[in-house]
Amino acid sequence: MYVGADYYPEHWPRERWEVDAKLMQEAEFNVVRLAEFAWIDMEPMEGQYEFGWLDDALAILDKHGVSAILCTPTATMPAWAPRKYPEVMAMQPDGERITWGVRKNNCFTSGTYRLLSERITRAMAEHFVDTPNLIGWQTDNEFGGPVCFCDTCRADFQDWLRAKYGTIDEVNRAWGTHFWSHKYTTWGEIEIPHPSGRAGRLAGPDYLSTHNPSLCLDFQRYHSHLNVRFQRDQVRILRALCPKHFVTHNLMGSYSDLNYYDLAEDLDHVSWDNYPVWGAPSIPYQSSAAADVMRGVKRKNFWIMEQTAGPGGWSAFGRNPRPGEIRKVAYQQLAHGADGQVWFRWRTCTAGREQYWHGLLGHDGKPLRRYQEAAQTAKEYHKLAPELEGTTVEAKVAIIYDYETIWALRIQPGFEGNSYHSAMMRYYSALVRAGVNVDMIKPTEDFSQYRLVIAPDFYLVPDEVAQKLSDYVKGGGVLLADCRLAVKDETNLCYDRTLPGLLSDTLGIAIEEYEAMDDDMEYRVVGKDVVAGDYTAVKYVDWTTPKGADVLATFDQWHLESFAAATRNRSGKGTAYYVGAVVSEPAFYDQLIADMLKTAGVSAHLAPPEGVEVSAREGGGKKLLFLVNHTEEKQQVAVPSGKQELLSGETTGDTITLDKYGVAVIKVQ
Amino acid sequence: MYVGADYYPEHWPRERWEVDAKLMQEAEFNVVRLAEFAWIDMEPMEGQYEFGWLDDALAILDKHGVSAILCTPTATMPAWAPRKYPEVMAMQPDGERITWGVRKNNCFTSGTYRLLSERITRAMAEHFVDTPNLIGWQTDNEFGGPVCFCDTCRADFQDWLRAKYGTIDEVNRAWGTHFWSHKYTTWGEIEIPHPSGRAGRLAGPDYLSTHNPSLCLDFQRYHSHLNVRFQRDQVRILRALCPKHFVTHNLMGSYSDLNYYDLAEDLDHVSWDNYPVWGAPSIPYQSSAAADVMRGVKRKNFWIMEQTAGPGGWSAFGRNPRPGEIRKVAYQQLAHGADGQVWFRWRTCTAGREQYWHGLLGHDGKPLRRYQEAAQTAKEYHKLAPELEGTTVEAKVAIIYDYETIWALRIQPGFEGNSYHSAMMRYYSALVRAGVNVDMIKPTEDFSQYRLVIAPDFYLVPDEVAQKLSDYVKGGGVLLADCRLAVKDETNLCYDRTLPGLLSDTLGIAIEEYEAMDDDMEYRVVGKDVVAGDYTAVKYVDWTTPKGADVLATFDQWHLESFAAATRNRSGKGTAYYVGAVVSEPAFYDQLIADMLKTAGVSAHLAPPEGVEVSAREGGGKKLLFLVNHTEEKQQVAVPSGKQELLSGETTGDTITLDKYGVAVIKVQ
Amino acid sequence: MYVGADYYPEHWPRERWEVDAKLMQEAEFNVVRLAEFAWIDMEPMEGQYEFGWLDDALAILDKHGVSAILCTPTATMPAWAPRKYPEVMAMQPDGERITWGVRKNNCFTSGTYRLLSERITRAMAEHFVDTPNLIGWQTDNEFGGPVCFCDTCRADFQDWLRAKYGTIDEVNRAWGTHFWSHKYTTWGEIEIPHPSGRAGRLAGPDYLSTHNPSLCLDFQRYHSHLNVRFQRDQVRILRALCPKHFVTHNLMGSYSDLNYYDLAEDLDHVSWDNYPVWGAPSIPYQSSAAADVMRGVKRKNFWIMEQTAGPGGWSAFGRNPRPGEIRKVAYQQLAHGADGQVWFRWRTCTAGREQYWHGLLGHDGKPLRRYQEAAQTAKEYHKLAPELEGTTVEAKVAIIYDYETIWALRIQPGFEGNSYHSAMMRYYSALVRAGVNVDMIKPTEDFSQYRLVIAPDFYLVPDEVAQKLSDYVKGGGVLLADCRLAVKDETNLCYDRTLPGLLSDTLGIAIEEYEAMDDDMEYRVVGKDVVAGDYTAVKYVDWTTPKGADVLATFDQWHLESFAAATRNRSGKGTAYYVGAVVSEPAFYDQLIADMLKTAGVSAHLAPPEGVEVSAREGGGKKLLFLVNHTEEKQQVAVPSGKQELLSGETTGDTITLDKYGVAVIKVQ
Repeated sequence: MYVGADYYPEHWPRERWEVDAKLMQEAEFNVVRLAEFAWIDMEPMEGQYEFGWLDDALAILDKHGVSAILCTPTATMPAWAPRKYPEVMAMQPDGERITWGVRKNNCFTSGTYRLLSERITRAMAEHFVDTPNLIGWQTDNEFGGPVCFCDTCRADFQDWLRAKYGTIDEVNRAWGTHFWSHKYTTWGEIEIPHPSGRAGRLAGPDYLSTHNPSLCLDFQRYHSHLNVRFQRDQVRILRALCPKHFVTHNLMGSYSDLNYYDLAEDLDHVSWDNYPVWGAPSIPYQSSAAADVMRGVKRKNFWIMEQTAGPGGWSAFGRNPRPGEIRKVAYQQLAHGADGQVWFRWRTCTAGREQYWHGLLGHDGKPLRRYQEAAQTAKEYHKLAPELEGTTVEAKVAIIYDYETIWALRIQPGFEGNSYHSAMMRYYSALVRAGVNVDMIKPTEDFSQYRLVIAPDFYLVPDEVAQKLSDYVKGGGVLLADCRLAVKDETNLCYDRTLPGLLSDTLGIAIEEYEAMDDDMEYRVVGKDVVAGDYTAVKYVDWTTPKGADVLATFDQWHLESFAAATRNRSGKGTAYYVGAVVSEPAFYDQLIADMLKTAGVSAHLAPPEGVEVSAREGGGKKLLFLVNHTEEKQQVAVPSGKQELLSGETTGDTITLDKYGVAVIKVQ
Repeated sequence: MYVGADYYPEHWPRERWEVDAKLMQEAEFNVVRLAEFAWIDMEPMEGQYEFGWLDDALAILDKHGVSAILCTPTATMPAWAPRKYPEVMAMQPDGERITWGVRKNNCFTSGTYRLLSERITRAMAEHFVDTPNLIGWQTDNEFGGPVCFCDTCRADFQDWLRAKYGTIDEVNRAWGTHFWSHKYTTWGEIEIPHPSGRAGRLAGPDYLSTHNPSLCLDFQRYHSHLNVRFQRDQVRILRALCPKHFVTHNLMGSYSDLNYYDLAEDLDHVSWDNYPVWGAPSIPYQSSAAADVMRGVKRKNFWIMEQTAGPGGWSAFGRNPRPGEIRKVAYQQLAHGADGQVWFRWRTCTAGREQYWHGLLGHDGKPLRRYQEAAQTAKEYHKLAPELEGTTVEAKVAIIYDYETIWALRIQPGFEGNSYHSAMMRYYSALVRAGVNVDMIKPTEDFSQYRLVIAPDFYLVPDEVAQKLSDYVKGGGVLLADCRLAVKDETNLCYDRTLPGLLSDTLGIAIEEYEAMDDDMEYRVVGKDVVAGDYTAVKYVDWTTPKGADVLATFDQWHLESFAAATRNRSGKGTAYYVGAVVSEPAFYDQLIADMLKTAGVSAHLAPPEGVEVSAREGGGKKLLFLVNHTEEKQQVAVPSGKQELLSGETTGDTITLDKYGVAVIKVQ
Repeated sequence: MYVGADYYPEHWPRERWEVDAKLMQEAEFNVVRLAEFAWIDMEPMEGQYEFGWLDDALAILDKHGVSAILCTPTATMPAWAPRKYPEVMAMQPDGERITWGVRKNNCFTSGTYRLLSERITRAMAEHFVDTPNLIGWQTDNEFGGPVCFCDTCRADFQDWLRAKYGTIDEVNRAWGTHFWSHKYTTWGEIEIPHPSGRAGRLAGPDYLSTHNPSLCLDFQRYHSHLNVRFQRDQVRILRALCPKHFVTHNLMGSYSDLNYYDLAEDLDHVSWDNYPVWGAPSIPYQSSAAADVMRGVKRKNFWIMEQTAGPGGWSAFGRNPRPGEIRKVAYQQLAHGADGQVWFRWRTCTAGREQYWHGLLGHDGKPLRRYQEAAQTAKEYHKLAPELEGTTVEAKVAIIYDYETIWALRIQPGFEGNSYHSAMMRYYSALVRAGVNVDMIKPTEDFSQYRLVIAPDFYLVPDEVAQKLSDYVKGGGVLLADCRLAVKDETNLCYDRTLPGLLSDTLGIAIEEYEAMDDDMEYRVVGKDVVAGDYTAVKYVDWTTPKGADVLATFDQWHLESFAAATRNRSGKGTAYYVGAVVSEPAFYDQLIADMLKTAGVSAHLAPPEGVEVSAREGGGKKLLFLVNHTEEKQQVAVPSGKQELLSGETTGDTITLDKYGVAVIKVQ
């Protein structure tokens, strides 16, 4: 198993390289990622390549048993590029190009930038193909650059639309341009949607815009496509020249400016960058969810390419990981499918904007506490490696994770503060508390692999997907959906159907009206039966009329008396739940999940106490239970007895005690 | 009486038009507003007109007894306009023109845009003049476009100033350019005042600027003039070609970027757009005040051209009107002088940026609850129509409502959070609670029509107006003024007089010093006699020295011991009140209003309980009392007995009971 | 002694000038500052000078015994300048030049603007050199203009760097451009760092940027240099032509966009503008600290060139100084070394953006309360003048006040809300409460003049300074340092040493790790011995390992058990304290300061009650104690008995009673 750190030999004097490699070896690190920001050192003048320094660094690492992943360095271009070719910098809404000197600032349609990217990729691949300790490549770094407003980007967006829609009439139909006199008569009339405030932005589309939501959605797709295309150009070269090396990219978990399903198509496996240590210590189920998203992107295990190693931040930084925390953060990812573990970074940089993104070593380069904790973890990982071989998470429960819905909700959240991720976490957290693993899946996935499918805030639902969900339930599946279900079609038009449209029969409900609520409003929810109790609806409620469904909860509110807050409906052999409210209390979701798991016949790995996370990896006849204590208290967990805890080597009794931030790996099979 | 909805046939397939018209007829709707965003459908290529589709739609409506108001479509230009003529788009402070794709984005000095506007107006007028069910025109939509920073606007502003002031020396005098070396030597030196932050803005001047306040005020006047001139060009054509049709425009109530008195000069009557359903249910006296402003603009009844029909909003939307609320919102306006009632919109649009501005029908087009409630209201309105004929609100109390003061306070509020509207509402709300109707009047109005004139935050006061107020009191009138009275002259210079300047004798006070207060400050106010009680002064206090006036309230604060918080002064045959503080407690204003009404000899319609609004319409020997319950509790109201309640047809006893959101119309005469 | 007001004869009719001069004379004012915004009146057309009006005004003032300070008027240029020479306006990040019409808006590298500045300076100097009542000059007004992003500024910045670093390789080394591929290959590649948001800004660099911190720091130095150079050009002319006049500038206290040490080099003495009356009344130790900074700039007494005379503000204004407050604000500055006192302004302007910056006279020009209080103060000052002659503050305690550290912390505060000034005030306030005077000194100062040196948040520490501090302690000095000590070198690189680097031995500690804390975090601090008590650490803690130092306080927090919150270490003959936390409770700092003063052998002037400030001026064998009551309660203060209180002429007993806002001046020697 590969464990290591992100390493920047170009930051340090040569005489230090040997020291670093030795310290790595002592920590049983066997991999580094290199060179993702070293373009200027490899091509100090256009077309003039200097790889000798990197050869030397690689040789020293090799001598100490450390393999390497090399990166194409296109996330930070050298100053000579915009000096010679101003068009390589992205143009801002005010017509000025971004000032060189930060990162991720290029225009993705610039022919020059695409050429320079191919040239350095080819030069690196040709030079390093036979480097003995080179095992793979990372493309660029954390894709997701700025929106560029230049004329080329605009024309290329028009061409992308032409390829997609064929005729301008079809664009007009698909985007509903009968509204506000927006019908186009020529392709050249189509604009890049501008943010309404037009304040310059360095990253990501921002749809606090009053532009047509259908235009905005297609522009978001185009923006994603530009990044995918840019990577594909590099991958094509790497595949041709370095067929033995893997190719990956460091994604950003729940970052959602790009469609990661598309971006990952060209990769062997995905990697991701995990920075959960912020604010006061808390239960980081966001990181579990992100890990499941990452595992879902290619439906296989992933790497951690950057993992919190110390306080992080730009002008200001944050909390220092406490003793045990670096290790438990790593185990959480291991438990969810990480097959590689790389800390960011080896040593804290003394120069530039990342002086406060602290590494395992501080500015002083001494192997202190954080290094020691990482070294301990590395050694444990190597011990566990044979058991982990061939295992992954195998879930019976899936959550639909769809970028089109995520984007459409960003463009129009419907109610203040709404986002796909906030909706998803209401259910995901309850599932983790229940001790159950989850897969994050595309809506085009085969649902029949799962006993329970959850579709939170599933907003943009093509008819064939609605049909698939309906069939899934009829065939015996259990489905849960909630607010804003199936409001939009593929081009971000509202359906002209009573909600939830094609899924009304499956759910046994009709939603004729609905309302968003300001922060000064709330309604009381009265749960019955499986969700017995009093709760609070906030932010949004559907006025849901049961049409055959059982009512699980109602509103104690005069104008909502005839409506249901939550329903359950038998349809064919299956069951479909609907929650038409945002409920404040986690207990509501816990009870609901418990009922759904029971209906679906899914049982938990075990019943973890609050703050302890359980996850299983299985495969090849093996099954490992991972317990991670996210709290600063000792925790006692009821576990299968008579099994081996692999870290201590001891045999389990009825319970196991986890120290603060403690972890356990129990081989149950 | 006309009751109906805003209708967009261009959004729906032709086969739906008949269905819609039939549903309208069933609801007893007899009017629609059409085409205000349909330019591209009427002129798909410059100079090529297509009105056939609209003819067809009008014919179908006519068949079902529905009349129409047509709009000039100049609020949203077609994409071909900026494609051919880039100068039609407004220029932002950063020198970039606004990106086409939203609305209200044109430059008002662009000769091209003015030409295109005249052409489509003429074409429509010529084509539709004889359409049998066409009753009138709406110009454009919600005037109040962006400030444009192009060279033409700048030069035109210079010309406007030249016409106003004649010489540059007179500009220098009027604007006090001896300050900060700001004296102009040529007209070409005058700039459009830029917002200090210079962040792009899509609508409205924003004077968080450090430019000369006198320049800012004249620029605001010029900005208003540009909109008035643009409308006038259209009205001239409509009058010439369609002499039998009325011409109106949909104003926005308390919106104050434009001088509505000027804008309304060219109209037969004004209409306005009323969207009071936001946040948790509350008492919407803002909507009453806005209605009174609208009635005051031309001193005659008005139409509602857009009225809340469902949840509204852009990326996110708000609360759904509760059962009864759509109806009571309409009655509130009827009570204040609405002679037409048009809901926005007929059916919720499935495309574009207004997908969440919900209509009477949802996306699904079904005639459900909101439609039913509007239909009921429409039917009641038709029943009431004969009684309403010839009636309007006849008030004995007036509030001075002046755009020059509103603008000058926006440029320099004096204290944080101050605005004309917040000051005005302190008195207006107390008057509503007292059961008294109010007129909103220009400062040039004849005050002698009123028993009581209230001048809240009356900041910019020309000497002749001060003289008129003084004469009014001497002649027997009752006047109330408050903080920041008569600080500024017509060109936004401070008077070099001790405040309140020419009104000192009338009010019997002198204000040598004053202070604004931060949020962490407050002073105790001790009211005596007619305003007995303890209150709290916040935000601002005058250090008012009585010079003959009676002291109604003092401060319990060491450094304010010799000053009055409120005074009352006899002057000639009249009485003048002054309030030199912003008081937190409504009870203070209630007591003060009670005393003023008594002094003025004005009696209330009746004494409404909290949350019930009473308003009267009278004329032709008739008098109707409207009671509107804004609360969700039943309310009992003492009313004149033995009168007819027109909605139930019953005869009143001593009290009447209003259901939640209930209304009553009592014919008292 | 000079006492007076800022006066603008160009704002008022000529017939008023005599009235004003007479009122000044009656108030015993003997100086005015004139003409800093009067360029257009002195040069109405380029090269055409008109000084006659000012000659007349000066003659009238002279007749009434009022001397004058004249200003170069370059803070507000006439409109003809940008009309003829557009390049004189600063360019904003969006490429647009600032719109003329505010102030401080020029480009400092514009050759044209520098020429115009020299021409008007020369013309004034030549014309006024022999004016009998002219005593000195003020350059410009409140230096600190906007950052300009024009090509000339960029090229000039490159030249400035070339002069500083010689080679581009040396820039690369000094700035650590090995990070993010930022190595420069030509000078022309160096950019002005842009704010990341790129929103236009009218004043001051803003480093919420992701540019290289080393680049940002040098750009801040360059920005300061531009202002210094601009002033130097004017001073050179004034010195040559008016050798008998003093030259000063009105600084802004703790304003820190410019290095005031550099700016002051060309001045005879500094002046500053003091506006402490904001918000609810509170204890204004910020003004004392600013006064000490001002006295420290040239290590000599200063003038107040603008002093609060009434409510102040732009669009909105603030609180009115209460009776006694204008006087006590003046005395606070006198006590800290003010040798001149000028109120801003004489009379409130009726025109322009400063209509609400109220003067001693209101808009009405009447000599009322504020005038009377200033007149009383002026008369007292004249009485005190002989005693003040030759005195200044002589402190035994110094605080290191360094612009390089201030700037580096603005670029990267390290933890949210951190700034040099907030850190400094923790110690400064405790020293004032202890009744001790403080000097603010450069890090290059000779520390041996002081018994106690405090270095709060001393972040950028060249090695020679660290060595000096170490030597100072060894030689018997007492030093206190706190968080973020010696993190950075001169070019804003992090040292690669374990903190606090070269000062570890002196302080007897090592800091291997540290962390910033979000607002939802705090740790309990347990003080022992000299700081006994329970406290709260917020925002930031060092994980400080004692290496010989005594532990004064620890953390009650599991992961910090082995670390110290505060330490004290003997080193050579001296003592060095370290505080590795931000503590909420002032009592912690009071106890710590008490112990340090004791260790240093520094005794207080006297022990003032909370809210009473004591300061001493001494010299020529004299010593005056100033007592200023900042509260609105009477205060009793124990004082040396048998001394003369100079204002009352009475002899002191054991205590003296100060009225609300009262002051006393006791001649103790």
